[in-house]
Amino acid sequence: MPSAAAPTVPGRAARVHGTVRIVGSGLLGASIGHALTQHGVDVALADTSPAQLRLAVDYGAGRAASESDDPAIVVVCVPPDVVADVVEAELAAFPRAVVTDVASVKLEPLRALRGRGVDLTHYIGSHPMAGRERGGAISARADIFAGRPWVICRDGETPAADLALIEALALDLGAVPIEMTPEEHDRSVALVSHVPQVVASLLAARFADAPDLSLGLAGQGVRDTTRIAHSAPELWVQILGANATPVVEVLDALAVDLASAADALRHPDAPGARRTLAETIRRGNVGVERLPGKHGQRHRFESLVVMVDDVAGQLGRLFGDLGELSVNVEDFRLEHSPGAQLGLAEIAVDPAILNAAVAGLESRGWRIASTSD
Amino acid sequence: MPSAAAPTVPGRAARVHGTVRIVGSGLLGASIGHALTQHGVDVALADTSPAQLRLAVDYGAGRAASESDDPAIVVVCVPPDVVADVVEAELAAFPRAVVTDVASVKLEPLRALRGRGVDLTHYIGSHPMAGRERGGAISARADIFAGRPWVICRDGETPAADLALIEALALDLGAVPIEMTPEEHDRSVALVSHVPQVVASLLAARFADAPDLSLGLAGQGVRDTTRIAHSAPELWVQILGANATPVVEVLDALAVDLASAADALRHPDAPGARRTLAETIRRGNVGVERLPGKHGQRHRFESLVVMVDDVAGQLGRLFGDLGELSVNVEDFRLEHSPGAQLGLAEIAVDPAILNAAVAGLESRGWRIASTSD
Repeated sequence: MPSAAAPTVPGRAARVHGTVRIVGSGLLGASIGHALTQHGVDVALADTSPAQLRLAVDYGAGRAASESDDPAIVVVCVPPDVVADVVEAELAAFPRAVVTDVASVKLEPLRALRGRGVDLTHYIGSHPMAGRERGGAISARADIFAGRPWVICRDGETPAADLALIEALALDLGAVPIEMTPEEHDRSVALVSHVPQVVASLLAARFADAPDLSLGLAGQGVRDTTRIAHSAPELWVQILGANATPVVEVLDALAVDLASAADALRHPDAPGARRTLAETIRRGNVGVERLPGKHGQRHRFESLVVMVDDVAGQLGRLFGDLGELSVNVEDFRLEHSPGAQLGLAEIAVDPAILNAAVAGLESRGWRIASTSD
Repeated sequence: MPSAAAPTVPGRAARVHGTVRIVGSGLLGASIGHALTQHGVDVALADTSPAQLRLAVDYGAGRAASESDDPAIVVVCVPPDVVADVVEAELAAFPRAVVTDVASVKLEPLRALRGRGVDLTHYIGSHPMAGRERGGAISARADIFAGRPWVICRDGETPAADLALIEALALDLGAVPIEMTPEEHDRSVALVSHVPQVVASLLAARFADAPDLSLGLAGQGVRDTTRIAHSAPELWVQILGANATPVVEVLDALAVDLASAADALRHPDAPGARRTLAETIRRGNVGVERLPGKHGQRHRFESLVVMVDDVAGQLGRLFGDLGELSVNVEDFRLEHSPGAQLGLAEIAVDPAILNAAVAGLESRGWRIASTSD
């Protein structure tokens, strides 16, 4: 794996000192608390639900908050529609603390707070780009921030020391702090998170009443395209509602493109129809290549596919052999179709060692199904 | 892994006897040829491109066809827009053979052939639901059909012996033969393959001109949603054009849903706006749950996530330990964020052994990041 950023490994000394108060102990709150606790930071947890709070404490996300707490940082991890209320209350209760929140939208809570005339000197909105399909403390994971962007929306009034504290928090969690304006943030997440959610849900909704016979032909492509359609309705109604303007802008542009693709198919002999279709796919090629992360990484790596029988011992032998061959595994995926007796282990490696890895594995009796070109 | 179907393992005796002629040695043609050759079947390859043919022969997909061949089966593996021409020519050249094709659309070639008055007694359209983002013989893989549906479109005139031969071909490749009418097939693939392709491409196209800053926030969700946007424009223009009517039908329905989601966001206080949004996500939940395959399997399995350092030896030790603990790995995924030093090995296991697996791994010093609920 690449090591461009250097996330903090749990156990290392924390940059953050003093008490961190976390309000809301769901997935993000409990994950932040868990990671900070591993660093030895004093984490005080608050939640309107005593059961949820107890769960997070049992999980190791921190201790229950007490009235005598004097936190250096307050992290508000509540649903979007109550963020402004809770931030206002926390600023009033802890005037010496820097208050941040982790909500998926940044402009609407800020507008609400400004509208109420709240002094926002010590408030810095932030948004860690991390999450899971499953919510709740039970799904919390200390490492979900590792290597992920953590957007920080300061403004001209923000004291440098406050900004440094929130950056230290992000760094302690292994995240990469990125400064943006609330407007930039909201437009960005509309594009790369909120609209993809709507699109995946709309596509998956087409399968709700489809015949079993048709769905039986579904493969990995459509499964990937619709994976995030598993997300929870309650949360997403809030997120989409709070970021409506930028989301609608992208959805409208998408609707125009969709209509012209459909028209091109309806009138295949109209001038430019074939070109419209080709452009639809080609511009998709261009767009998907620009996404960072695994796609980008896959470009930097070559892959080989090894056929393995369906037993854990086989994978143990494979990884043992890879270790002996000094092959560092950059990425790994076990692929198998329903009903198949054989698995395909796709292994991403440094291009410089691809041939040696293939030769080494073959000499040890492994069947290589294919390698990337 | 499940073993509901029993795909043929390469090397086992083939059901198909005699020569199989494959016309077109791209991804599918070369994959079929490669698999049949492994079974000891005589495969005669033909391709209009001598270079492509040589590549496929070198790859082990068969021998070059000769004029004296007397094939039992002809498999037409050419692009959709020339399928009808090639099927007609092959039926005329080999009147004793059963001719099939593997094109992604079934009705249009059939209509074209009927329109020309071709005797279709010995033609059976088929479509193996297998493929890869990359095309060409170089990407061929003998196992891409394993456990996948292989749609067979016979009609009332089809001799039983011919049908049996095409079913034997599918079974020899490890696929699961499924009978459908051409209409059922085309409507089904419009829904689960062609429309998802258009949607993924349209969504990814939105990133073509987006600011780097915005794309930097992209995560695994949007990467999955747009993965198939990598597909080749030339092929997809043909596929979409040949299946325009059912594709347009689904796209139109999608456009209506998209418009009402956008309207609900535009007028959040209109009656029912919030419910429309919630329904969009909720119906997506219902639809995605109905897709067979990995999603379904994941429901049958529990998963645990083990933290591993970034070295092949660690994975070797992990799988070695899993083998010693007699834990059968149903599915495996190595997850890591860009820049992360730690990987997360997600392992799917039988729910009955989840607790024992977790305890066993922990006793051997592994850190379990989480388990599924």
